[in-house]
Amino acid sequence: MTEFSEWFHNILEEAEIIDQRYPVKGMHVWMPHGFRIRKNTLKILKDILDRDHEEVLFPLLVPEDELAKESIHVKGFEDEVYWVTHGGLTRLQRKLALRPTSETVMYPMFALWVRSHSDLPMRFYQVVNTFRYETKHTRPLIRVREITTFKEAHTIHSSAAEAEEQVERAIEIYREFFDALGIPYLITKRPPWDKFPGSDYTMAFDTIMPDGKTLQIGTVHNLGQTFARTFDIKFENPDGEHEYVHQTCYGLSDRVIASVIAVHGDESGLCLPPEVASYHVVIVPVIFRGAEEEVLDACRGLMERLESAGFRAHLDDRDLRAGRKYYEWEMRGVPLRIEIGPRDLKNNSAVISRRDTGEKTTADLESIEDTLRELMDDILENIRKRAWERMNSMIREAETLEEAAEIIEEKRGIISFMWCGDEECGKDIEEKVRVDILGIQEGGTGTCINCGREAEHRAFLARTY
Amino acid sequence: MTEFSEWFHNILEEAEIIDQRYPVKGMHVWMPHGFRIRKNTLKILKDILDRDHEEVLFPLLVPEDELAKESIHVKGFEDEVYWVTHGGLTRLQRKLALRPTSETVMYPMFALWVRSHSDLPMRFYQVVNTFRYETKHTRPLIRVREITTFKEAHTIHSSAAEAEEQVERAIEIYREFFDALGIPYLITKRPPWDKFPGSDYTMAFDTIMPDGKTLQIGTVHNLGQTFARTFDIKFENPDGEHEYVHQTCYGLSDRVIASVIAVHGDESGLCLPPEVASYHVVIVPVIFRGAEEEVLDACRGLMERLESAGFRAHLDDRDLRAGRKYYEWEMRGVPLRIEIGPRDLKNNSAVISRRDTGEKTTADLESIEDTLRELMDDILENIRKRAWERMNSMIREAETLEEAAEIIEEKRGIISFMWCGDEECGKDIEEKVRVDILGIQEGGTGTCINCGREAEHRAFLARTY
Repeated sequence: MTEFSEWFHNILEEAEIIDQRYPVKGMHVWMPHGFRIRKNTLKILKDILDRDHEEVLFPLLVPEDELAKESIHVKGFEDEVYWVTHGGLTRLQRKLALRPTSETVMYPMFALWVRSHSDLPMRFYQVVNTFRYETKHTRPLIRVREITTFKEAHTIHSSAAEAEEQVERAIEIYREFFDALGIPYLITKRPPWDKFPGSDYTMAFDTIMPDGKTLQIGTVHNLGQTFARTFDIKFENPDGEHEYVHQTCYGLSDRVIASVIAVHGDESGLCLPPEVASYHVVIVPVIFRGAEEEVLDACRGLMERLESAGFRAHLDDRDLRAGRKYYEWEMRGVPLRIEIGPRDLKNNSAVISRRDTGEKTTADLESIEDTLRELMDDILENIRKRAWERMNSMIREAETLEEAAEIIEEKRGIISFMWCGDEECGKDIEEKVRVDILGIQEGGTGTCINCGREAEHRAFLARTY
Repeated sequence: MTEFSEWFHNILEEAEIIDQRYPVKGMHVWMPHGFRIRKNTLKILKDILDRDHEEVLFPLLVPEDELAKESIHVKGFEDEVYWVTHGGLTRLQRKLALRPTSETVMYPMFALWVRSHSDLPMRFYQVVNTFRYETKHTRPLIRVREITTFKEAHTIHSSAAEAEEQVERAIEIYREFFDALGIPYLITKRPPWDKFPGSDYTMAFDTIMPDGKTLQIGTVHNLGQTFARTFDIKFENPDGEHEYVHQTCYGLSDRVIASVIAVHGDESGLCLPPEVASYHVVIVPVIFRGAEEEVLDACRGLMERLESAGFRAHLDDRDLRAGRKYYEWEMRGVPLRIEIGPRDLKNNSAVISRRDTGEKTTADLESIEDTLRELMDDILENIRKRAWERMNSMIREAETLEEAAEIIEEKRGIISFMWCGDEECGKDIEEKVRVDILGIQEGGTGTCINCGREAEHRAFLARTY
């Protein structure tokens, strides 16, 4: 693969995912093809969340005083909040912030909604745009000023144990979601100095991009009772006493789409999980003079059959050379292509071509629905396996900090090592290797890579996006 | 019905549609039940649009200089645009407006997208939030500062005739949509002084609220070439010459949901078209001591059957009195309720109760799916018919301005009369009757209600929201 950053920029343009020419830095346009991929991805996510979450929609604008209420939280965002100061030519009495995330939007309302222990748990989510005045270099879908696809879930519980359990459930939800996209992930607990502002702790999903840098693609926060105290969210317990609730929140963003594109893509362009692709299958008639109508009729018939069987199918009957069509649909990541010519018709068969492996097989037209379904399952399994293998091959164990620095310098990827867990020691490691600690996993024994003390944490280092 | 305004305020709260207590004026929260109604309504709309429109998503923020480019257009909005002036503590070099509508967001990009006549027509739509700094009294879903559900379609054509035709198609689309919701409408051409800023002309859909005031629920604009000139959107025609494109746009908002609620609602609360309601049908077990398990099992079995047959069904097995449940589901507008008790089970039947008429029928459990489907169709037809009859009864012909003023004063509603079409005369009418001209329809003959000249337009007056 050519240099990743250039490849990514080009594929967003060529596959018409995002138009990067919008005249505000860090804000982009979802083009029709990109929008369909986004919609299909969101459908997978919503189908999972809708099992036990309620979808809601809260306002974009947060009054300054509400945003400022949770002081630790607001510190984490104040440098990057966009402020609305005027309505028409009138200066607003209270400045309004564009939500950077919605804790301060939702939680004053939660204080009104929660009454009794029998109301709990409550689980909400919304998919909205959020805003960060990024001063770093922006990059579509990865580091943007308008996050167009921010899925944030917020839950409310009557005990710490239940909130803890919800964190586990949220992790399971994200596992299921990323597995459905074939995206590999490393789940770690963020070091305390990198947790979500105002939370007790943060669990994070990172994946690895083709250039060896990691991308945070999902986070789950246990908020404890911090926000409950700030926003006075209380419930009446069975004994009639009022207690503060326990909360969690967890989020995903446009970065999920960035990772679907980057993790599976190759020199030919996009390679998408079937459920994400704009079409499951594209039918290309192979036309020779004299047999046009017969072939086209057969293609149209097949098209109808596939649609009524629930496939997202497309018949490409444009007057273009077949090769040009193959190139386009491969670039756009459509997982399966069916070619039908006069000879195929005679044999009542069709040639099916896989985007992920390039393999071609001849399939019986009678039972082609079954064949396509099997191939779709197989494609997801194959690209998922391939992506996990690549990610695993880029996680390397280091015994010394010198070794860690060397691997990062030469190969990037993720470095795994034992760490004592002490904050000062951790920051010392980050300084020495000049790379951030991604997070930790409990368990294992050994000695700390830096201070030599006994260590019961495994930690991970990586260059991050 | 009690005073409409109070009824509307209360039902939004009691049916948990919108929480009006968000601490910014004119901005509200979609609660879970309201969100489902909104989602179901949008699904109907998107299914229609997706036939020949591409869904896209453009940024929220418009640079000041882009917004200002089309001078007539910006004049129409400048008093009510929210301005972002700061990112973090930094003053932005260019102020950014929160989109009041997206012409100035999309059209600079259209100039990049349109190349040749073969690219045209293009038809896009997006569903987004837009912002207006309303200085008038705000009211949820009707006059808000954050329009949370703005569906805007924008089309591009190579000839004036094609744009004209698209206006007709857009009107057909909205007809189909409002018919699916059972909402009656009056379609008129807005008078020139009330057209969309920058357009050639505006066609509008108005419905009538229970208090006799009209509500604009949809508009279709022929933009001609005004924006094409401003944003330099050109295509190469078959002769190789560059021409400006012709454009249309058409929009709907949260007001659609307001009208579904207001037009069909009654003293018992919401009365929703089946496809809009959160559930098509609610099953309420009628339990007597000794038969609990048998009845509950039957209800669970029926629930599963209905879901697999594609119904949105809900089993209300809460430990509450049946009457309380009936009250709740009626208030929430669920169109059909199934009651099953021990006696019904013996007869292999169930009692079905209609929300719109209150009628109860006993149905055979074997074929209950068919019965439900028939009832759902009948309910939509019935509430649509009822709503059209009410609206038609509130459109009254006036022969003189005195008569018009009298009817408006006493009965509100819509006044229909002949008008010469002259702007000065029209404004004179508005001043005399102190009510705005809603719009005109071509055709008919007679003399102008005001100046007595020959008139070929029918015009309509009404108090509007």
